[in-house]
Amino acid sequence: MHLNEQWFTEILDNSGTAFSLKIHSRLHVEKTPYQQIEIYDTEQFGKLMAIDGCTMLTTRDNFLYHEMMSHPVLYTHQRPAHVVIIGGGDCGTLQAVLQHAEVEQAWQIDIDERVTRLSEQYFPELCTSNNDPRAELLFADGIQWIKDADENSIDVIIVDSTDPVGPAEGLFSEAFYRDCLRALKVDGVFVQQSESPLLHMDIIKPMHATMRKAGFNHTRTLTFPQCIYPSGWWSCTLASQQNTLDQIRTDDINARDFETQYYNAEIHHAAMALPEFMKKQLSQEK
Amino acid sequence: MHLNEQWFTEILDNSGTAFSLKIHSRLHVEKTPYQQIEIYDTEQFGKLMAIDGCTMLTTRDNFLYHEMMSHPVLYTHQRPAHVVIIGGGDCGTLQAVLQHAEVEQAWQIDIDERVTRLSEQYFPELCTSNNDPRAELLFADGIQWIKDADENSIDVIIVDSTDPVGPAEGLFSEAFYRDCLRALKVDGVFVQQSESPLLHMDIIKPMHATMRKAGFNHTRTLTFPQCIYPSGWWSCTLASQQNTLDQIRTDDINARDFETQYYNAEIHHAAMALPEFMKKQLSQEK
Repeated sequence: MHLNEQWFTEILDNSGTAFSLKIHSRLHVEKTPYQQIEIYDTEQFGKLMAIDGCTMLTTRDNFLYHEMMSHPVLYTHQRPAHVVIIGGGDCGTLQAVLQHAEVEQAWQIDIDERVTRLSEQYFPELCTSNNDPRAELLFADGIQWIKDADENSIDVIIVDSTDPVGPAEGLFSEAFYRDCLRALKVDGVFVQQSESPLLHMDIIKPMHATMRKAGFNHTRTLTFPQCIYPSGWWSCTLASQQNTLDQIRTDDINARDFETQYYNAEIHHAAMALPEFMKKQLSQEK
Repeated sequence: MHLNEQWFTEILDNSGTAFSLKIHSRLHVEKTPYQQIEIYDTEQFGKLMAIDGCTMLTTRDNFLYHEMMSHPVLYTHQRPAHVVIIGGGDCGTLQAVLQHAEVEQAWQIDIDERVTRLSEQYFPELCTSNNDPRAELLFADGIQWIKDADENSIDVIIVDSTDPVGPAEGLFSEAFYRDCLRALKVDGVFVQQSESPLLHMDIIKPMHATMRKAGFNHTRTLTFPQCIYPSGWWSCTLASQQNTLDQIRTDDINARDFETQYYNAEIHHAAMALPEFMKKQLSQEK
């Protein structure tokens, strides 16, 4: 159901909301073994990629999500050399990760190669680091990859996936978190996109509990705006074994040699401020 | 244009976006001398008030806007005794203002009495302070009221209006800002809703310039999530003559004797963090 043929609409049945973008045309549609991918040319937001009918990214506002999925976790780790991205097939997170000179190797493991190939075609500005010698793009099951990873080998794991239904569901499970903890070095930091604070506290709250049950002693949700996602307000949740989630490398943020559009040191600290209702609901998990 | 008769849709032509709420029914519609007001019963967001086709507030998420339009400015002023709200006919801002014990008198000046009467009927939880002896509800032109106000008589002015087109346009003018400055005491603080950081920098940027031209030496934009407004990300802009916008009464916030759902001391400080793109665009106005 769309407003009319000039609009792309994502309907969220369980929140009773819908978000629409005005389009010029649909540029591409294909059904891969994993999902249906569509590319639209929008009127005001540049290109739009939708997967299974859900808005994934647009040219105009993806900077918010990609910057917040990468820079906070990397500036929380004291020396992030080996970074793994689970999902993230559009390569925007990978590009942001590789802006950090201390990153020696970054693996992007997305199950669907077509997401990456279509991103290279329609979002080339996000794919400028795909040939960086430090980058390894793998098209495989991220859950299995983490299970097979060497113990104590990774500094940072970023889970940049779709919603916790269907193929991505396993990425929100205790078993997966345990495998991540095993693969991470003892001072490793994990981050995962964690849905809308307004609409999805029923996901965010148990996520903290599950992460802690799996052995992460410290968890923390950061919030940020994301226009095209449900409610326009989104979050990511960090987890670590050691008590390091407050040790932000502020001087390094201020001395960074790359451009950002949203992220800076003040925004990093600000994103950690919990609204009163989240504080109350998450206090039981601390 | 709606998705179908089960949805209320607000279309933003100039941003190529639309936001929809699923509804059970339309409870009320009327054309006042100023605007068309509609009340809907939504599926997941409680009641919805729409004015001239634009979503104004819902039961579920109005706390974000009302808390951020009132508490930051009141905890920035060192002793807010006399407070004026221009617009704000739904009474949610008035209610939040009157939670502050140091407020001795609060005037709410909305041009359209019907907004208040319908709010009393459909949002009674926002109108519990309408009979507070400190409250004075006036139905008049706010621009004229400020022009007629005694010089140096007001501590805080809150402009809780619709968008800067049509009836509210004059509330974004240099002449109005000058009149506000005249009515405010020398340590007075002004705040105005200032649209979406993502979509409306073309409004926010000149707003700072106009405020400064009118004689406000200090201006500062705070951002916050607001699901039902365009892009889901909103802002308010504070202005003052004296350099007091950083002097937040943090101890008083922490000692407050009323409940909030979003606001707290960390959120107040966080809301002041400017995203990189805003910092760059507003730096010329400082």
